[in-house]
Amino acid sequence: MSPARADRLVELLAERELDALVVTNLVNVRYLTGFTGSNGACVVNRDERVFFTDFRYVEQARDQVPDFERIEATGDMLGAVAERLRGRVGFEDEHLSVAAHGRLVEKAPDGVELVPEGGLVERLRAVKDETEIAAMAAAADIATAAYESLSERGLAGRTERDVAIGLVRFMEDSGSEPPCFSPVVASGGHGALPHAIPRDVEIPRDTLVVIDMGARVDGYCSDCTRTLATGRLSEEMREVYELVLGVQVEALAATTAGAEGSAVDAVARDAIDAAGHGDHFGHGLGHGVGLALHEDPRLGRTAKGSLTTGNAVTVEPGVYLPGGFGVRIEDLVIVTDGEPRILTAFPKELVVIG
Amino acid sequence: MSPARADRLVELLAERELDALVVTNLVNVRYLTGFTGSNGACVVNRDERVFFTDFRYVEQARDQVPDFERIEATGDMLGAVAERLRGRVGFEDEHLSVAAHGRLVEKAPDGVELVPEGGLVERLRAVKDETEIAAMAAAADIATAAYESLSERGLAGRTERDVAIGLVRFMEDSGSEPPCFSPVVASGGHGALPHAIPRDVEIPRDTLVVIDMGARVDGYCSDCTRTLATGRLSEEMREVYELVLGVQVEALAATTAGAEGSAVDAVARDAIDAAGHGDHFGHGLGHGVGLALHEDPRLGRTAKGSLTTGNAVTVEPGVYLPGGFGVRIEDLVIVTDGEPRILTAFPKELVVIG
Repeated sequence: MSPARADRLVELLAERELDALVVTNLVNVRYLTGFTGSNGACVVNRDERVFFTDFRYVEQARDQVPDFERIEATGDMLGAVAERLRGRVGFEDEHLSVAAHGRLVEKAPDGVELVPEGGLVERLRAVKDETEIAAMAAAADIATAAYESLSERGLAGRTERDVAIGLVRFMEDSGSEPPCFSPVVASGGHGALPHAIPRDVEIPRDTLVVIDMGARVDGYCSDCTRTLATGRLSEEMREVYELVLGVQVEALAATTAGAEGSAVDAVARDAIDAAGHGDHFGHGLGHGVGLALHEDPRLGRTAKGSLTTGNAVTVEPGVYLPGGFGVRIEDLVIVTDGEPRILTAFPKELVVIG
Repeated sequence: MSPARADRLVELLAERELDALVVTNLVNVRYLTGFTGSNGACVVNRDERVFFTDFRYVEQARDQVPDFERIEATGDMLGAVAERLRGRVGFEDEHLSVAAHGRLVEKAPDGVELVPEGGLVERLRAVKDETEIAAMAAAADIATAAYESLSERGLAGRTERDVAIGLVRFMEDSGSEPPCFSPVVASGGHGALPHAIPRDVEIPRDTLVVIDMGARVDGYCSDCTRTLATGRLSEEMREVYELVLGVQVEALAATTAGAEGSAVDAVARDAIDAAGHGDHFGHGLGHGVGLALHEDPRLGRTAKGSLTTGNAVTVEPGVYLPGGFGVRIEDLVIVTDGEPRILTAFPKELVVIG
């Protein structure tokens, strides 16, 4: 991992009047150090970058974490971390458990002050560099190809579960790591559940199917939703589809550096509201994506802060009619000071796949 | 989910002089309520069982959580949880973050005392009922069939990654949910890493391959390791294999109700030590398995407590020779007051697959 990330964290520490940060959230540890194992932590201060893991990952850490001093701490990692703390030390309060915090306090040397300080590494992660964008673009391309593969394999008559498994296999065969999330494949009334689990149920003809999936490259996720038709649609289905598509394009245009996350959300929400579907769009407009599927920044009613060049966010309005059907259209984009760069290339005009 | 689980939790609350428990660990929430979504919590006291989730899972919760009062709490779940607290309330201190705990304290009504109390639901989870054992046995059978499929597909000349992907697909095609963990397929020197990640490297002939995998049925994991040969082995490989196999069988015989977890571990550790490989067995002998891959009870040097009828544990001694090779043999068993019931049926005598 580029040592520049830890350098930028040190700048934030100065801003927060901290001597050091204890990083225990594994995604943040990966971002700073490059470590991909399941147990690790690090301490960053002005003069030291120390990484801790257990015996299982010592060899892996030697390869992945060359820029940090590496400590093997099997059995009592927090004890080993505590020994290296000095002064005013931030910890990730949204992540560290009450019990782990208690152990850290107990074992820290005299004079150490532990200060709740969540979200510092998350602030760095929210702005992507070119390498990160390239990984996300590669992941998005794999998912686009997976959507394209559907026209060959078909939808109607296959079970939702079979389609979902087929999509994952296609993505893995195309070079994806295990995806960040299991695909949503939700047809008919099931499409009205934003987080539907694929069923062992055949997809009918003449309905809508919400398909939400992403691939993963070098740890970076992609995220894309398309709503496909399996034949002729009712007028209501067509109308809602066109509504969501229009709203999505409008919201994309508002997704630009400087715009507040709540204001971008409002563009979509107001338009859906005006069309009489205000009660049918229960989730936020979008979320940041990176090493985690959901990260900063957020686009939502109560989102704080504004967008910055280099943010990677989804723009995904939806209309869900309980017992009826659902439509969601989602792009993953990189924020610029003009139009966003769209990573998800599959067509958004209604595609029919029988 | 059987309401009996919440009833048994209420008995433990009385024992701990608690009026209620706030359950935030999602695996514990699933165990008590049956809920399988990604966001939920529950509060259990003598008279009330209350379940909380957000709008995305309201329909799913109606199906899965019939025995609890259900509250839709979108946006501020902890606030909704706090409103329902009265008296002396335990929280899961090994799970709840410092920040979430702070929000709970802030929002709880006057007179509520929040008490750190980890591990109560885990104590219940450690003893499996017949339904749980049946699910784990079904998962173990799927993994056994996956091992058997290797003799047809072969090992030598395929990449570790290809083998790992093939095993997952076989298990999913045989009815497994997405497995609890990605298979380990580690050949030659890589086998000396207990948590090796499968590489895009061809498996050579005449070596050992450590394959660790499990399937998942109704949420319940299985876990099994076999070390297979791809041809002729060196004398050292054969010796270490026979050592580990003998130790594993000996440790299985010691895995019985009433035995201390540390004593069962010592049976294996002492035997490996006596053979001169004490430094080459860095992990504990085994761990509980259930809805989580690693849960109570533990078999290890510092494990506390003793085994009970109905515990589901792995018995997995290993010898890892850095730069050389590794051997691990792991069964998943149900503890009884006699010989354990072994769920993992693939042969343990050395199997050669070219």
